[in-house]
Amino acid sequence: MSEPLTIIGSYISPYVRKVLVFLELKGIDYRIDPIPPFVGNDTFSQLSPLRRIPVMRDGDLLLNDSSVICQYLEDRHPQVSLYPVDIADRARARWLEEYADVALGDAIAGKLFYQLGIKPHLFGEKTNDAMVQQARDIDLPAALDYLETHLPTDDFIFGELSIADIGIASFFRMAGFVRYTIDAERWPRCAGLVARTLALPVFAKLATFEDRALRTPVSEQRAVLAAMGAPLTDTTCGGAPPRRGVIVID
Amino acid sequence: MSEPLTIIGSYISPYVRKVLVFLELKGIDYRIDPIPPFVGNDTFSQLSPLRRIPVMRDGDLLLNDSSVICQYLEDRHPQVSLYPVDIADRARARWLEEYADVALGDAIAGKLFYQLGIKPHLFGEKTNDAMVQQARDIDLPAALDYLETHLPTDDFIFGELSIADIGIASFFRMAGFVRYTIDAERWPRCAGLVARTLALPVFAKLATFEDRALRTPVSEQRAVLAAMGAPLTDTTCGGAPPRRGVIVID
Repeated sequence: MSEPLTIIGSYISPYVRKVLVFLELKGIDYRIDPIPPFVGNDTFSQLSPLRRIPVMRDGDLLLNDSSVICQYLEDRHPQVSLYPVDIADRARARWLEEYADVALGDAIAGKLFYQLGIKPHLFGEKTNDAMVQQARDIDLPAALDYLETHLPTDDFIFGELSIADIGIASFFRMAGFVRYTIDAERWPRCAGLVARTLALPVFAKLATFEDRALRTPVSEQRAVLAAMGAPLTDTTCGGAPPRRGVIVID
Repeated sequence: MSEPLTIIGSYISPYVRKVLVFLELKGIDYRIDPIPPFVGNDTFSQLSPLRRIPVMRDGDLLLNDSSVICQYLEDRHPQVSLYPVDIADRARARWLEEYADVALGDAIAGKLFYQLGIKPHLFGEKTNDAMVQQARDIDLPAALDYLETHLPTDDFIFGELSIADIGIASFFRMAGFVRYTIDAERWPRCAGLVARTLALPVFAKLATFEDRALRTPVSEQRAVLAAMGAPLTDTTCGGAPPRRGVIVID
């Protein structure tokens, strides 16, 4: 028996979520080291030269970058396929994934969630309200305007579920952690696509771990997630958390 | 006869260079709209929502992002193949390309070339010496240390030339525009790989256009490149240049 594939990275991260959705839908056995954001130790720095999550290990292969990992999983485990068959559509799907990684990554992960979640709760620092406003009033409306012209009124973007739907929805799941929801009157296609995708059983399964991680102090997360049945690794490369804070307080 | 494939983006850009090397090596007919950096007009903004180059149009398909475009060209024109056949090596090659796009992109395009080339010559602004020093003394040594452990002493990274060699070499070609060369005693594998790759006829062919673009005022570049035989588009989505400056003065 070979060792199961390993993922390093928090359940909270939209980049990790994309990869976990792939693993779940493709039925690949895996373990996760759910290190909280920004607390990787020296081993983590060696495994991830850009200090980003997720990191994947599959036997001898160590990989970084969620897009590269998803494409590897597709190449290695082509069933269930999560990229369109048509070559032009496949390229469009990869571009929409990249657009989400950059534009939604900056607005939602880099500004909204970082300012409203990570800074006050994990670092004990003051939220920069101007950054939150920039994300809510300028960056996200621009991204939603762009996406709205590329999404269908119903169904997934390329008919079957693909990396494009999974990528976009993964970021808006994080936006929900800090109470941001898409205005369905202004962007009905975006709101519809995200709702349809997040309603899938795979997102619902991961959501139970995400919700708990958000409400558990960093130092207790491994124990709590293990007790819930999360498939944890035996060892961790998470470092000491800066504070005991939880990110969401109901 | 269908229209030839079109690329929008400057010969100076390492992201554009990757795509042009693909087109040349795969023998694909193309036209280029070589808009200078940072001067796209409103049409450009519509074609490139992140305002990045290159942009590709192939019939009805409009694509952004050099990594997505290169993978599309590989899927559509699998001969000459520029990705490793082995699935794990293919993933490693994509990761090295991504690492170059981010780490070398930030150090070389974002700091070194921007501060020493674009700012003083195109914008008439003062170079930020601290940023140059950060790139030369901290960022690039860290990136070269990492790459050195992943490169062979001879040959290309995966035997045959691939996206990984092309990506890495494309950035160090730009570093050369502002007189940065890799210290071959400290990083012999990096220096060797870049030298071997840039010596290929395809890089030499593109270099003639790059060298001229660097030494020609922005407003005269289309005419000069056309006279040299560059395969230009009929129309441009380049905007008005901020200054008449040339980037390299011999």
